[in-house]
Amino acid sequence: MELEFLGTGAGVPSKGRNVSSTALKLLDERNEVWLFDVGEATQHQILETTIRPRKITKIFITHLHGDHIFGLPGLLSSRANQGGNTPLDLYGPVGIKKFVETSLSVTGTKLGYKINYVELKNGGEIFNDKTFSVTAGKLEHRITCFGYRVVEKPRTGELLVDKLAEYHIPNGPVYGKLKAGEKVTLSDGTELDGKDFIGPDKPGKTVAIISDTRYTPEIDKLADHADVVVHESTFSDDDKKLAYNYFHSTATSAAKVAKKCHAKGLLLTHISARYTGKSALVLQNEARKIFDNSRVVNDFDIYEVPFNQ
Amino acid sequence: MELEFLGTGAGVPSKGRNVSSTALKLLDERNEVWLFDVGEATQHQILETTIRPRKITKIFITHLHGDHIFGLPGLLSSRANQGGNTPLDLYGPVGIKKFVETSLSVTGTKLGYKINYVELKNGGEIFNDKTFSVTAGKLEHRITCFGYRVVEKPRTGELLVDKLAEYHIPNGPVYGKLKAGEKVTLSDGTELDGKDFIGPDKPGKTVAIISDTRYTPEIDKLADHADVVVHESTFSDDDKKLAYNYFHSTATSAAKVAKKCHAKGLLLTHISARYTGKSALVLQNEARKIFDNSRVVNDFDIYEVPFNQ
Ligand SMILES: [Zn+2]
Ligand SMILES: [Zn+2]
Repeated sequence: MELEFLGTGAGVPSKGRNVSSTALKLLDERNEVWLFDVGEATQHQILETTIRPRKITKIFITHLHGDHIFGLPGLLSSRANQGGNTPLDLYGPVGIKKFVETSLSVTGTKLGYKINYVELKNGGEIFNDKTFSVTAGKLEHRITCFGYRVVEKPRTGELLVDKLAEYHIPNGPVYGKLKAGEKVTLSDGTELDGKDFIGPDKPGKTVAIISDTRYTPEIDKLADHADVVVHESTFSDDDKKLAYNYFHSTATSAAKVAKKCHAKGLLLTHISARYTGKSALVLQNEARKIFDNSRVVNDFDIYEVPFNQ
Repeated sequence: MELEFLGTGAGVPSKGRNVSSTALKLLDERNEVWLFDVGEATQHQILETTIRPRKITKIFITHLHGDHIFGLPGLLSSRANQGGNTPLDLYGPVGIKKFVETSLSVTGTKLGYKINYVELKNGGEIFNDKTFSVTAGKLEHRITCFGYRVVEKPRTGELLVDKLAEYHIPNGPVYGKLKAGEKVTLSDGTELDGKDFIGPDKPGKTVAIISDTRYTPEIDKLADHADVVVHESTFSDDDKKLAYNYFHSTATSAAKVAKKCHAKGLLLTHISARYTGKSALVLQNEARKIFDNSRVVNDFDIYEVPFNQ
């Protein structure tokens, strides 16, 4: 599980940072990539990465500001052009369907795959299958905005090969049954329960995506014990009044969330264009005073989940 | 008068060429920039140039395919963010208003300037003032598509300074009146007519923008005696059947137009991604066999109007 940042700027593209888009790469887990927000030129950014648009199976839109959605029509079209023919789930606030469908119909675009629109009015669980669940939570921005919590379910523990070795069981069907947790009777009459030969469940990983918002208690629920919290950090603490007035966060408020929620790591994104180049480290230093495992991310950064700075 | 190419690719962005946008820089003539098509990430391309979005006063859309319009909402928003507060004229096929207005309303964007929409159903003169006129002509593409002919009107000739010198007239009000073509009486009673001291009108310049289309006689009217014809050239003559079937042009058909219309120069754009790097010169060489002053353009190329290769 990896996070790849495709656009880490706020509001408008700059030479250093494109507008918002974050990829959650679940290649080992599901052979899928999930995108959070699709600012203009996200498909251009993807050209510079190893991400294949047809592997994008879910797109989560946080809110309908242009810097978070204007790349959507182009990306959806290119996904079709590049052989994408499997359905795509598109989650976002009410209005996202109208924007996409108008863009496609005005341009006469036939995608060749189905978009399942899931328009959100309130928070709650929006996806749940065998291996993952996703919860949306209402944030506090100028317009309706959702944060997302992606939870990987615990994975079955590994087969305890050493323990099995004591019974001299050859590789084969019996092995497979034990691995599946079934009961088997050996040729000598010994009864074995697969459950006794499987180690403890491995905890799944949790990622929270919090953008754009000022602090609201809903964030705590989304970020609770997350392996990584990706949090917008448009301003520094010096501008906390500005941040509040514009419904944005500071590095300090993001770090307080990470600490309070016992997160393992904090990645700061949605950086104002005023912080050019290394000056964005001001935000990182500010966050680390409160929560040590913090990083300000740049376009094209890739982080393992969990990560250590 | 200059042409600056912001996107010279066909269909989808590639590492080498962005999707369509061409800037006609009329800085000396009007202190304005006019754009033809606004593919996704045109605003990103503009960041790399000296063009200021607020100087863009007119945008002409050739047709409603995504690679020609998906950058429009972002560019219009950034124009407002960067201090643009003067009205903007937006010309294009019916539907362009719906696309822009939906994009702006879904995102809750208030631009702070007025967009004058001019939706075109048929060709004809669409703009005419003291110094310029613009004509649209219907092309032959899969969907409604217009080419544009921009005509600068003849400019008043220069004051014949040498001829005036014979009368020993000092710089001042008399000079100004003569320059304005008025009659004046000198202190010694001599009567002079300004018209006698102004050289012949200087012809204005003409630019034709032809994209996307297969050959149709309407092109000849748009390109007639143009100083520069900017012509799409998606294919080479080897693929002329493909070009016809997909309603596109070849370098050969573009060069035939330039020759037949007595154009001064031909700039080939809308180049297929199959022609990476220098391989696009195949198209240039093909065109030059028919019309010598031909160039395949690249993103960020700037050409004087008229130009000589
Ligand atoms: Zn934002
Ligand atoms: Zn095109």
